[in-house]
Amino acid sequence: MPIINSNNYEVLVDEHIDKLKSLISNYQKIAVIVDENTISHCYPIVKDHFGNHELIEISSGEKNKNLDTCNFIWSQLIEKSFDRKSLVINLGGGVIGDMGGFCASSYMRGIDFLQMPTTLLSQVDASVGGKLGVDYQGLKNIVGTFNNPIAVWINTDFLHTLPKKELISGFAEMIKHSLISSKDIFYKLSKIDLNQKIDWTTLVHESVGIKNKVVLEDPFEKGLRKILNFGHSLGHAIETESLKTDDPLPHGYAIAIGMILESNIAVEKGLLSLEESNQISEFITKIYGRFDLSDYDMDAIISNLKHDKKNEDTKFLFSLVGPIGHCNYNVEVKLSEIENAFNSYQ
Amino acid sequence: MPIINSNNYEVLVDEHIDKLKSLISNYQKIAVIVDENTISHCYPIVKDHFGNHELIEISSGEKNKNLDTCNFIWSQLIEKSFDRKSLVINLGGGVIGDMGGFCASSYMRGIDFLQMPTTLLSQVDASVGGKLGVDYQGLKNIVGTFNNPIAVWINTDFLHTLPKKELISGFAEMIKHSLISSKDIFYKLSKIDLNQKIDWTTLVHESVGIKNKVVLEDPFEKGLRKILNFGHSLGHAIETESLKTDDPLPHGYAIAIGMILESNIAVEKGLLSLEESNQISEFITKIYGRFDLSDYDMDAIISNLKHDKKNEDTKFLFSLVGPIGHCNYNVEVKLSEIENAFNSYQ
Repeated sequence: MPIINSNNYEVLVDEHIDKLKSLISNYQKIAVIVDENTISHCYPIVKDHFGNHELIEISSGEKNKNLDTCNFIWSQLIEKSFDRKSLVINLGGGVIGDMGGFCASSYMRGIDFLQMPTTLLSQVDASVGGKLGVDYQGLKNIVGTFNNPIAVWINTDFLHTLPKKELISGFAEMIKHSLISSKDIFYKLSKIDLNQKIDWTTLVHESVGIKNKVVLEDPFEKGLRKILNFGHSLGHAIETESLKTDDPLPHGYAIAIGMILESNIAVEKGLLSLEESNQISEFITKIYGRFDLSDYDMDAIISNLKHDKKNEDTKFLFSLVGPIGHCNYNVEVKLSEIENAFNSYQ
Repeated sequence: MPIINSNNYEVLVDEHIDKLKSLISNYQKIAVIVDENTISHCYPIVKDHFGNHELIEISSGEKNKNLDTCNFIWSQLIEKSFDRKSLVINLGGGVIGDMGGFCASSYMRGIDFLQMPTTLLSQVDASVGGKLGVDYQGLKNIVGTFNNPIAVWINTDFLHTLPKKELISGFAEMIKHSLISSKDIFYKLSKIDLNQKIDWTTLVHESVGIKNKVVLEDPFEKGLRKILNFGHSLGHAIETESLKTDDPLPHGYAIAIGMILESNIAVEKGLLSLEESNQISEFITKIYGRFDLSDYDMDAIISNLKHDKKNEDTKFLFSLVGPIGHCNYNVEVKLSEIENAFNSYQ
């Protein structure tokens, strides 16, 4: 696959092993951050490329994406005498990528790091764009920074090690990328059967390419980049609620509901035709099933929405697809329109 | 005084109140970080320029420049609903500037901050250069980042509120700035009597101008910027030891000893004449007195030196003045040369 050029770094999808080894060989000391999943499933596939290195193992899961784990990572870097010329390799999903990237970016005021995303979600989404951070006091990524890795190396072999639910979760971001930028890719994805053999190399390359194009144009989310938030305003608000239950929704499942709900709003706003909205809704429902939203407290969802970093004061600004392949941002949405969208979903 | 242009921001020394007010008026929400000293001595002088604002009060001192205090600042920003368009004003010395700047730079992946340094040390040193951070596990500034404020506003009226010892401490960095860049300024400073009335506006403007010129040429300390470390290799190592005692040395006092010791090394290396070294040593001793270094454990000082971020592995790389007005960097120094410098000081 051709190399994708991002902001001063390259995204390598499969192959390119020589390039990877040559990059890593510039560093005298290397730390590889893993969790209990990636150390057993992914690390054996790639460890021979690393040369001499130290492992820093953390516990997986969003609940560990916090300042306590940062303290542990910084302590490990200090204890193992990592200096300004060392490299951190983040071998994991979004949690390790965001948190390990933040720790590297703030250790000794910033040392180099390399992203090696292992989940479909992190390969097509978190891997580019430079957003790093951890959660604090129940708020997602409230402490963090923007910074770029020296490179992103994506190995789609990792995807075969993922639980099915994790794969489906990541697929939601691929659907989103198609909806905001390419009708052709949306229709191509619509025909995919996730139970069959899939050419992940091409699909991941295409999807990360879309995200990369957007973030290159607007690295600090001043404008255009907001289109990547399609499905995320309501998706995040629902995800936050679901995290309080015994059976939290994976991120992509929450975004899938968010995309259907926000498509409903786009129809009400006259941005999207009912026909296209139905196509979106049918495709997503085929993969993710129907959700029972009556379990969720509407007031709590609205309250989460108000705490969203993307909203200014009390105005709700959404990114809404319409027509398919195009996304509008900074669209002002009223509370009543949000309620209508929920009602028409039920 | 003319405005000093730094990297995308301006340094305003005294006056310029209209410019300051106009900058601040761009923000809907403003947090002013203070400590128990600046709230009583400096805040009353400037609070009318801030418009509506919230105060965040922390405890003064290097021992509070840590991640616990960061957690407190982040919590306060969350509790008071600060958003991406808010401003943090750091009204304090180096501790507040470094830590408040780091907290702002990592809150919501970075919100704007304005530096309002209140000590002589922070006015001529920490105010420009973009180095932010906090101490962790006994290591200075080990967690931090590089980032620039929207502006630096220096009010030399604050200096009249400082204890004498604090003023003398800051003066050491002014001496250093002259030694590394201008023989004329060094001789001018040599004639100053700190007990008389002093034109701080001109002196501070000149000194921060020197630092600014250096950091503009080398923002990320790849080369030239290292000259700012003159006196700091041994100065920091001694400061770290003194922090373990009941009567720790103020930063500038430690740097003053460091400058004398490193001048001795520069003489041994043939970089500095004995005559100039004596001028440096006499001037510094006149202000700071003679120190009894026999209280310090030489092995501990060397061990601190080895943990210095500036040293690579076991080589000691110093920045050494010679002749006065010029500084050499990446000079390899042997352990025996360090020992000789200590012996010839005693």
